[in-house]
Amino acid sequence: MKNKSTLILLLIFGYSGFQLSAQKSGTIVLDEIVRPHFRQEILIPDLPGYKTLKCDFHIHTVYSDGTVWPTVRVSEAWEDGPDAIAITDHIEGNPRKLPGQKHTEYEIALASAQAADIILVKGGEISRSMPPGHFNALFVTDVNALNVADYMDAIGEAVKQGGFIIWNHPGWRRQQTDTTKWMAEHEAIYNKGWMHGIEVFNEKEWYPEAIQWAMEKNLAVTGNSDIHDFYENYYNTGRFPIRPVTLVFAREKTEESLKEAMFAKRTATLFFNKLVGKKEFIEPLVNQSIRVAEPHLWQDGYAWFAVENLTDIEFTLVKTGSDDSELPGRTILPPGGTIILRAKQPEGQTMNYYFNLENVLTGVEQYYEYKMSVRYE
Amino acid sequence: MKNKSTLILLLIFGYSGFQLSAQKSGTIVLDEIVRPHFRQEILIPDLPGYKTLKCDFHIHTVYSDGTVWPTVRVSEAWEDGPDAIAITDHIEGNPRKLPGQKHTEYEIALASAQAADIILVKGGEISRSMPPGHFNALFVTDVNALNVADYMDAIGEAVKQGGFIIWNHPGWRRQQTDTTKWMAEHEAIYNKGWMHGIEVFNEKEWYPEAIQWAMEKNLAVTGNSDIHDFYENYYNTGRFPIRPVTLVFAREKTEESLKEAMFAKRTATLFFNKLVGKKEFIEPLVNQSIRVAEPHLWQDGYAWFAVENLTDIEFTLVKTGSDDSELPGRTILPPGGTIILRAKQPEGQTMNYYFNLENVLTGVEQYYEYKMSVRYE
Amino acid sequence: MKNKSTLILLLIFGYSGFQLSAQKSGTIVLDEIVRPHFRQEILIPDLPGYKTLKCDFHIHTVYSDGTVWPTVRVSEAWEDGPDAIAITDHIEGNPRKLPGQKHTEYEIALASAQAADIILVKGGEISRSMPPGHFNALFVTDVNALNVADYMDAIGEAVKQGGFIIWNHPGWRRQQTDTTKWMAEHEAIYNKGWMHGIEVFNEKEWYPEAIQWAMEKNLAVTGNSDIHDFYENYYNTGRFPIRPVTLVFAREKTEESLKEAMFAKRTATLFFNKLVGKKEFIEPLVNQSIRVAEPHLWQDGYAWFAVENLTDIEFTLVKTGSDDSELPGRTILPPGGTIILRAKQPEGQTMNYYFNLENVLTGVEQYYEYKMSVRYE
Amino acid sequence: MKNKSTLILLLIFGYSGFQLSAQKSGTIVLDEIVRPHFRQEILIPDLPGYKTLKCDFHIHTVYSDGTVWPTVRVSEAWEDGPDAIAITDHIEGNPRKLPGQKHTEYEIALASAQAADIILVKGGEISRSMPPGHFNALFVTDVNALNVADYMDAIGEAVKQGGFIIWNHPGWRRQQTDTTKWMAEHEAIYNKGWMHGIEVFNEKEWYPEAIQWAMEKNLAVTGNSDIHDFYENYYNTGRFPIRPVTLVFAREKTEESLKEAMFAKRTATLFFNKLVGKKEFIEPLVNQSIRVAEPHLWQDGYAWFAVENLTDIEFTLVKTGSDDSELPGRTILPPGGTIILRAKQPEGQTMNYYFNLENVLTGVEQYYEYKMSVRYE
Repeated sequence: MKNKSTLILLLIFGYSGFQLSAQKSGTIVLDEIVRPHFRQEILIPDLPGYKTLKCDFHIHTVYSDGTVWPTVRVSEAWEDGPDAIAITDHIEGNPRKLPGQKHTEYEIALASAQAADIILVKGGEISRSMPPGHFNALFVTDVNALNVADYMDAIGEAVKQGGFIIWNHPGWRRQQTDTTKWMAEHEAIYNKGWMHGIEVFNEKEWYPEAIQWAMEKNLAVTGNSDIHDFYENYYNTGRFPIRPVTLVFAREKTEESLKEAMFAKRTATLFFNKLVGKKEFIEPLVNQSIRVAEPHLWQDGYAWFAVENLTDIEFTLVKTGSDDSELPGRTILPPGGTIILRAKQPEGQTMNYYFNLENVLTGVEQYYEYKMSVRYE
Repeated sequence: MKNKSTLILLLIFGYSGFQLSAQKSGTIVLDEIVRPHFRQEILIPDLPGYKTLKCDFHIHTVYSDGTVWPTVRVSEAWEDGPDAIAITDHIEGNPRKLPGQKHTEYEIALASAQAADIILVKGGEISRSMPPGHFNALFVTDVNALNVADYMDAIGEAVKQGGFIIWNHPGWRRQQTDTTKWMAEHEAIYNKGWMHGIEVFNEKEWYPEAIQWAMEKNLAVTGNSDIHDFYENYYNTGRFPIRPVTLVFAREKTEESLKEAMFAKRTATLFFNKLVGKKEFIEPLVNQSIRVAEPHLWQDGYAWFAVENLTDIEFTLVKTGSDDSELPGRTILPPGGTIILRAKQPEGQTMNYYFNLENVLTGVEQYYEYKMSVRYE
Repeated sequence: MKNKSTLILLLIFGYSGFQLSAQKSGTIVLDEIVRPHFRQEILIPDLPGYKTLKCDFHIHTVYSDGTVWPTVRVSEAWEDGPDAIAITDHIEGNPRKLPGQKHTEYEIALASAQAADIILVKGGEISRSMPPGHFNALFVTDVNALNVADYMDAIGEAVKQGGFIIWNHPGWRRQQTDTTKWMAEHEAIYNKGWMHGIEVFNEKEWYPEAIQWAMEKNLAVTGNSDIHDFYENYYNTGRFPIRPVTLVFAREKTEESLKEAMFAKRTATLFFNKLVGKKEFIEPLVNQSIRVAEPHLWQDGYAWFAVENLTDIEFTLVKTGSDDSELPGRTILPPGGTIILRAKQPEGQTMNYYFNLENVLTGVEQYYEYKMSVRYE
Repeated sequence: MKNKSTLILLLIFGYSGFQLSAQKSGTIVLDEIVRPHFRQEILIPDLPGYKTLKCDFHIHTVYSDGTVWPTVRVSEAWEDGPDAIAITDHIEGNPRKLPGQKHTEYEIALASAQAADIILVKGGEISRSMPPGHFNALFVTDVNALNVADYMDAIGEAVKQGGFIIWNHPGWRRQQTDTTKWMAEHEAIYNKGWMHGIEVFNEKEWYPEAIQWAMEKNLAVTGNSDIHDFYENYYNTGRFPIRPVTLVFAREKTEESLKEAMFAKRTATLFFNKLVGKKEFIEPLVNQSIRVAEPHLWQDGYAWFAVENLTDIEFTLVKTGSDDSELPGRTILPPGGTIILRAKQPEGQTMNYYFNLENVLTGVEQYYEYKMSVRYE
């Protein structure tokens, strides 16, 4: 306040630091150095009639080659926003060979999950060389029974247990060196009705062919972290705070409802700002995500109006075709942010502007086209 | 540049976001979502004739009640700046009772430590009820041999193996409910020459009595994280980026040299911005830490001069006594920062200003007094 | 994925940095180095029948002793979330004495405000020595006419113009050295009906006496930044992201509605996490702010339930009285966060738990008491 | 510490927030909400015989079309690390037409600059349409005298005053629409010896042609912010903390020495992580910037060694040619960070590895080639 000189400010240096008092006895507890733990929901709208569950179906622990104890996975999910997770340690060839170490990761994590209201899906990763590669079996009842020599027997056993089968990281370059192929073995699994979903995204990679196959063959679109490390140690959460998730459009937040929705293929995936899924789910999702306000100013034939992003997803709007609206060709709608646009706008007439959402795919190379309607009276 | 209107800026929204290209085939690797890993040294000066090693001598893993695999502790130390660590899982009563699970955490972590140039000290935590409480045994050769019924036998065995014994968290309220006491059992251990160091700081607590005893009884001052969780998940590293460390003033960066320095009690501890140790080590440390420049301006009897903090420690300077210098009574010297002070200053005369460093203790309730000398010619 | 060795990770360092291509000709535009600009709303609920407008009624520019051009104040407000601002440069004694420089700050900023949908209130600061100190005049029509010798004439002229008068920073130590006093001059202004509001908070200070007077004398509670510098340069927005604001409970977002609400004293203030106002506004505000979910788990006589904070305010709950619920004595509810509580809970019975909200004052030393009702069937 | 259950941690939520005490009277000052202000040096090494001065020679204020008061530019420089700045408001056509407002920005800022030990260079921007465009005149004595009709007269007057002339943003698309051309007018200025430097970087753009011309015609390489807004409001300092600067290799930190070095063309520029300059300055700069340690481990024919980046510049090393070292093809050396590399390494023999530094240009399309020498005995 009040007639300050910048020069003086510079010198009377008023920085209030973190001070530790001197004290003669007792135990001084420094609570401020401890990181606060709480849950932050991921903002993605529900669809009419469905709850949007955010899920990570591919996670490891020390029970195979991960670096963390199983309960950590629940704490992470509770903080980061997922509603459901599956711990899917490698079933075969546990490299650590701790004697007597059966797959007990689910049992260890369960009490934490119940307390934290996280749906913990029982699962495991059938981890074979290519073909056919790795497959996650979700909702199974006895993971150890899948540890059999023949991969088809393992998948069959999982299906017999009620399992939902996902082909993992189909384009992983250590298993598919040059091109991402759908091999005879995958065709065989698919023809038996034993392939229910596919990973479009895994860890830090995504696979255009998997999008194509998901659409053509009606596989559930999934995207999962395949996290081995502590989550925040692997991802650059400072720049990309939202975990990659499979979105499942379920009737309610229960394991049964989740399973029903997955077998019905009502899924999509969000990895960082990219949203991939069938148009029938993407369309209502986007329309619930972006709110275009009525113009707050109209001047000389131009309208000024706010566009609000109600989600944690960064949307990129690129005009399709040309119009004389003078709207920018490319607009970023930041997570939780509002921007103001100006367009040529006749009074009392609804104008429609069309944009490709560059971060939303409803098929390979197929951007979702978003219609923005503006009217000034 | 160049005649911009703020109004227009507001509307032509030019945010360049993170874009994922649409692509028809292949595997797209999103390197930018992965957190970069590299080492950042902790800036604390060496002392004349000694290298200042930053050490954490109290760390847990899944081999007792921690949540991480042993190699993680090496990665964390490599990134965060410690030069030496000891993994000190509880020796008795492993709560997880994995069959056959002996203390192999050291062996598991060793190759990583060698590659990362981190000194990995072999150790374990003798974890008894109070009295006498918990003790870390460092530099021992066979941790499993310390798992014996009598605590004195356990400590004796550690000493026989060449071990350095630290009394851990002496003021932990779960073991010392009201006041922090030096009991007969501690006296007995001490009298045998079997207590070499004491934790002044542990996890998020510090203990004034421990400072007192360290000075009176010539115990090595230590401060350690006692970390069970991932380091970054436990501490609020956003606000307090520097790990709590024991500082060891060693002739060189080798395990032998480290051990020699510790038995010689050439240690101090830094926890967040608090530095605690004997004056003989604190004095040269502080004098290497703060650089007072010659005045760059002299005007009307006032000198203006820069004071630079060469370390990652935040120093707080509080004037002792009164002088007519017009220097502020309380000054914060931020980590790596430079501030400018103004003082009444006769030309051609050295002025000495005295400050208590409120974050530096050389005894209980005993701040280190810092002398700032300024001269303008 | 897939059987990684931490050791190898450590060495094959895969950090994808920011790369600038080499290019032979043309102009390379580095959009990523430019800070994105967008609006982020401040999350504070509306009250039944009223819209909660967030306002800053005390702001300076280069037109008195501030450091920024008037349009900057609109851009800042647009980004930071306020709905309304008043630029209130000192009316008397402009220290810069730019010849011909009348108070044109409002005119300069107006077009930006209209484009950004920010209500720009016309105002100025009557800046006299104590008594009576500084007063803001809002909603006036001719600021220059307030530049008259006698302070009572200045205030009278403001009132004649329809002005709303606020006593600014009543406890500013440069004007009230020891204690914060209501002097005869303030009584005189008040008795004429010319004092409508008071600053409970200003810049970085708050004044308990002002809370007392606001309640006793029915003055509108306000809290304002009195910002002279760029907003982000003055406040530590990294730690405290929400601007101090006066909350006005208005029928709609228009200047008329805002003015009506202020003269009706329907206001409160939020500065950092402290919320101050009359109980009749605070009670519905808090009840819209905190959502207690039904218990998701009931086990052995304990219920586990989520408590969600729907706002950008950090609430601190401290149990009043004692109960046997085993709830923690002190609980922090972080902005936008959800926590899980566990309480002893009989089935089929509603339990009420009482907490003082330590960050919410409805009077001097008077915390708002919050009732949390939990029921498990 | 000590046998914690993660489950319990989850529920006994122990977050220590920022608390505002209730208090009955007095003025409560919240120092923690105020942003600390201090200087942080930019880490770029000196060259043998020269001090590396970091400079920004293109800056605006409210005295032309900027948004800040002149003293702000000194405060910003003092905090951000530059050693010298020039405020270079547009000389012609001041859009604000404040009556009587001559160019007094230098006089206003000077006292702050002296207190802060920042070299304040007097200057202005000759701002004409293309050709020839905009030119900065530095070290001039009377800025107002440059406000004459003919551009050549203006430049001549600047030279007469001892001015150093820089061609600003030669590839600015509002003045050079398609291609960046050296026109007859530039040739004329150059032939008179009146063009001393050129901007290779301006604000958020860089110009390959300008690099070419700087090398061919021996112009001083410069890069400047051309900042109009508050610095932190324009640039994304969260991701790119280091200001774009012109590096001047001067004998000492004085204005005379700075001027001598500039006329001697001992300059380079750093904008974000890109370093551009003549090889004679770049070579010693890089060699002082990167420290390769002796191998700390040698095993099975491989050496493991640390590479430390002593600067605030992010270096990108790309192997040139192929070798059998098994070093990664592309390595990022983060600012202030250390990485560990592993190479095939015969004992007792020096191995040289070659890398293009992708962020360092010594000419158009010409990366600096860095030689890394490693020896294990």
